[in-house]
Amino acid sequence: MKILIVGASGTVGAFVASALAERHQIVKAGSKSGDVRVDIKDSSSIRKMFESVGKLDAVVSAAGKVHFGEFAKMTEAEFAIGLKDKLMGQVNLVLVGRELIADGGSFTLTSGVLSHDPVRAGSSASLVNGAIDGFVRAAAIELPRGLRINAVSPGVLLESMPSYGPYFRGHQPVPGTRVALAYAKSVEGARTGQVFEVL
Amino acid sequence: MKILIVGASGTVGAFVASALAERHQIVKAGSKSGDVRVDIKDSSSIRKMFESVGKLDAVVSAAGKVHFGEFAKMTEAEFAIGLKDKLMGQVNLVLVGRELIADGGSFTLTSGVLSHDPVRAGSSASLVNGAIDGFVRAAAIELPRGLRINAVSPGVLLESMPSYGPYFRGHQPVPGTRVALAYAKSVEGARTGQVFEVL
Repeated sequence: MKILIVGASGTVGAFVASALAERHQIVKAGSKSGDVRVDIKDSSSIRKMFESVGKLDAVVSAAGKVHFGEFAKMTEAEFAIGLKDKLMGQVNLVLVGRELIADGGSFTLTSGVLSHDPVRAGSSASLVNGAIDGFVRAAAIELPRGLRINAVSPGVLLESMPSYGPYFRGHQPVPGTRVALAYAKSVEGARTGQVFEVL
Repeated sequence: MKILIVGASGTVGAFVASALAERHQIVKAGSKSGDVRVDIKDSSSIRKMFESVGKLDAVVSAAGKVHFGEFAKMTEAEFAIGLKDKLMGQVNLVLVGRELIADGGSFTLTSGVLSHDPVRAGSSASLVNGAIDGFVRAAAIELPRGLRINAVSPGVLLESMPSYGPYFRGHQPVPGTRVALAYAKSVEGARTGQVFEVL
């Protein structure tokens, strides 16, 4: 398969790229590095990316920012960051890619544990992750041409603990290699409309 | 209690207003009718509403639009309708209201069954409902002053079947009086961070 990984240089993306590269042709996309550059906040940038890489069998997104901050002070504009980036950035990968990806192709998006197991400062992440999970469940039942879509909802990565640790005290960190398995299950398996939790 | 019901003239809102009016002082808000007018898409309109109604013990939102349409043709702009209205409209009620509501007060938002049990044409609703559920779980753990927040996630209302029926074939319609009970549980009970499903 020819697989596009958006956010391939991120912590999750690098583990996914490494795992899938054993068996597939990988095209790495990122905002600042990769085989192709993309700003997922801009659907015309997404379209350019798809046109430049040619026919794909799978699109994996491990990209998207949200604002972390104390809820008492979180503003509408700070919520908008996550809506524009991690949420609609990933949704737009599907909206643009749905016509360009090969028959039987798949989309795999990234949500996260905070939708159900919230932490302080994570209200925007919880909102966005819940939205991604709802979206893939619904989009799956309407996709044509045998296309599939799933989300991977990982706990905090072991390898991210140096930076995210203080937010996630008491959470079980998950090794990146194990998180990558869920992406392989989505891409190489046959299920659709699923949220693969890795906890 | 003095309870603001946003969307009080809608199908859900009217059942909630009727149920809570037996025991409480109700202030009805709506875009086109009610004791006070509000455009939930505009946080300055929300702020004016809160300032005009005085101190509240509870805010119930049964308001918010999303676009229903075939996923294959759904555009970024059509997804934006639900993000701006049902999602951020309700979130902004909390962002503005969190400083103005009385100590120990509560917010009750409305999501819906489509987050987990999708139907054709409902991908935007599924996204938004999942976002609302994630948001209340997270906001609850950071709210100060004993404030609480929950969501009610109803199935399709029996009374909405004339218009929504074709989208919801096979779904069990839920009587509005039973949906209203979940709002009473949220407002008059003590739980927080919950998604009360009414199926």
